[in-house]
Amino acid sequence: MKKVFSILLATACALASPAKIVTKTVEYQQGDTTLEGYLAYDDSFSGKRPGVLVVHQWLGLTDYEKHRAEQLASLGYVAFCADIYGKGIRPQSIKDAGTEATKYKTDRALLRLRVNAGLNELKKCKLVDTKRVAAIGYCFGGTTVIELARSGAELNGIVSFHGGLDSPTPAAGKNIKCKVLVCHGADDPFEKPEDLAAFEKEMRDANVDWRLIKYGGAVHSFTQPMADGSLPGAKYNERADKRSWADMKSFFAEIFN
Amino acid sequence: MKKVFSILLATACALASPAKIVTKTVEYQQGDTTLEGYLAYDDSFSGKRPGVLVVHQWLGLTDYEKHRAEQLASLGYVAFCADIYGKGIRPQSIKDAGTEATKYKTDRALLRLRVNAGLNELKKCKLVDTKRVAAIGYCFGGTTVIELARSGAELNGIVSFHGGLDSPTPAAGKNIKCKVLVCHGADDPFEKPEDLAAFEKEMRDANVDWRLIKYGGAVHSFTQPMADGSLPGAKYNERADKRSWADMKSFFAEIFN
Repeated sequence: MKKVFSILLATACALASPAKIVTKTVEYQQGDTTLEGYLAYDDSFSGKRPGVLVVHQWLGLTDYEKHRAEQLASLGYVAFCADIYGKGIRPQSIKDAGTEATKYKTDRALLRLRVNAGLNELKKCKLVDTKRVAAIGYCFGGTTVIELARSGAELNGIVSFHGGLDSPTPAAGKNIKCKVLVCHGADDPFEKPEDLAAFEKEMRDANVDWRLIKYGGAVHSFTQPMADGSLPGAKYNERADKRSWADMKSFFAEIFN
Repeated sequence: MKKVFSILLATACALASPAKIVTKTVEYQQGDTTLEGYLAYDDSFSGKRPGVLVVHQWLGLTDYEKHRAEQLASLGYVAFCADIYGKGIRPQSIKDAGTEATKYKTDRALLRLRVNAGLNELKKCKLVDTKRVAAIGYCFGGTTVIELARSGAELNGIVSFHGGLDSPTPAAGKNIKCKVLVCHGADDPFEKPEDLAAFEKEMRDANVDWRLIKYGGAVHSFTQPMADGSLPGAKYNERADKRSWADMKSFFAEIFN
């Protein structure tokens, strides 16, 4: 009986259509600023499906996020990489990246406008089931998707990968309507214990549906091979990368159910 | 094509054998003490399979752990509920439970002997693939499975559900050979921030492969309906219960791969 099951399952898998990932560069606006995002979906799927916004780290939108969007497309989602900085603004050095990211970290109102513009662009895609939408972000993008939630945006959930968790306005936690998953490197030197405690308090006080996973042995940027050698305290960690991706998939299975 | 896939998959599932859970009460010894455990497996599976030890909360081995063992059996594992206290020692009040648990929490050497006796009993079962073994535990049992790991026991992983994480001998972390997953209620009043910090330090210093998940809104005993009304700060939380069970399953998928 088990053999029959295995043979049928293998046959069924072989008959499934192969993935055909379609990607597009998309210009859109926030106020007077032109932004340049990146859309990815699997053309072998039919009908509407959940949408996932992907927010870049401090270097701006790079091939890294585009690859993540393609991975999400392969999983059956419509993925859209937001551009927070603006078309053509892609810092080439750590110094410039820091300067650019700081502009938005110190102007959360502008950061919210920019990320919401990306969310709206994702929702405009006709393939997206607008009742099933999430956002994920890396480092600066992790901070950004939490800020998206704090803006009161309508979406099912957000996932921060090694994002900064601090908030200049912790009371904004009460605006959060979606589920929150934080994937955090247990040895991340850029998040102080007091920042973590303040974030937890914000979530608790606002009665948010949240989870935080600490990955032992992981520091900042644990999902990003390009981080190696960039800064002390930032390093790729394959184990934590794979686990956090799996945890994101479980989270999506729950929120898109 | 999608339809063909769905029909084949449905047919394959319908052909799979129905579960047939076999359970047995098992007497075993640790030193001069007789212990009474509980074995569960699915008789519709054939061949060796991973084994999971289940360690009880402070009331001793109850129907709660037996049900968990049956759930694990349904998932394809051989499950064995250890008895730490001894045959017939099943406290009926919180006061007696506290007294009994304290005996072992303050005598970690004895606790290690008792839990290792359970692990050995599980491994004796001919259906168990002894190279693929894990242990899970609830509250007192969570503390106990971490102590099992600290004893240097040979197993693939342990999962603590709302277990106490403190250790009188943090240097024992260096003995840990298995992967560690801690499922923790973010609002658990019985685990102080300093206990969590000490546990993380123990894991870090010993270079353990560990993860800790904080479930927002969950307090102590969040997997146990029977905790409701027992103690302030202990309460069932269905959301965190389901999530932590799913997280355990993902962990098993990884460690038994």
